Amino acid sequence: LGGFCLVVTQEDHLAVSLETNLDLHYVVAHQQIEIKTSASRTVIPQEISLETAIKQWSNLGGFTAALFKNDKDLLAFCAQDFVVETHRKSQIPHFDELKELAVANGALIFGISGSGPSVFALCESNQTAMAVKESFDKLLTKKEHDYHLYSGSVDKKGVHELL
Amino acid sequence: LGGFCLVVTQEDHLAVSLETNLDLHYVVAHQQIEIKTSASRTVIPQEISLETAIKQWSNLGGFTAALFKNDKDLLAFCAQDFVVETHRKSQIPHFDELKELAVANGALIFGISGSGPSVFALCESNQTAMAVKESFDKLLTKKEHDYHLYSGSVDKKGVHELL
Repeated sequence: LGGFCLVVTQEDHLAVSLETNLDLHYVVAHQQIEIKTSASRTVIPQEISLETAIKQWSNLGGFTAALFKNDKDLLAFCAQDFVVETHRKSQIPHFDELKELAVANGALIFGISGSGPSVFALCESNQTAMAVKESFDKLLTKKEHDYHLYSGSVDKKGVHELL
Repeated sequence: LGGFCLVVTQEDHLAVSLETNLDLHYVVAHQQIEIKTSASRTVIPQEISLETAIKQWSNLGGFTAALFKNDKDLLAFCAQDFVVETHRKSQIPHFDELKELAVANGALIFGISGSGPSVFALCESNQTAMAVKESFDKLLTKKEHDYHLYSGSVDKKGVHELL
């Protein structure tokens, strides 16, 4: 619960828990709009260039390594999404503004959570996360959709069951 | 030198050293044929399906996590290559026979090294690696190409400079 998890997708799915000693704090912004998962999938092309695929493969490996190596610069460097974000961000109201606010307030990473419409920011400190959250709040309160903001710290043990 | 290295491919290339406590032994078989890198690239399609790309992304992440987590089962599970091997193995003489020998002798992983024509097996013990090497030797000595076999242990510190 609450940490990083990698799902290895072959015939079966295998959840791999990713441990880290990085101190990471998340902010999630969820606007009350509905994007059907099926609709969300159709905006993604079914074929991608090998070049893009290779960039994304190395990012996945680098992101995973960054967690274990506790290397926040590498984590931020490898968090870029070359595949989904370009296509899916148009479905998320105010995506670019939210991203700019996250970056301006010092977030390491900003991205789409799952198939949307939630977006998340990952920050190095609770203070930064609170600043990001406040900036999201100020923006979204002026906009047309109801929204919820969530924040908390990332579990260093990765995904695990609560006993 | 001699350990795992992940190359993160964006505008620049970034080499990320992958540490592990797994005790891994390699065998490399190099047959004396020439495959031009350019020719080797042309057999790979320039577009791949998103489904295949996702499988390979998760494998890359899983492989990286397996090294840090010292999980040899996960390492073997995630070592499957869904993209390059299918297209490139036809350029490597006796590929399927070598793979069968590696698996039969207990190798965790068998694959193509870089763009070929070298192939490698990774094993859990030196004893297994020696058995794999011997089986390669017995096979290749009957075949048409000159060949070299190499073996050794994988550096646990990942790729690093020798002082």
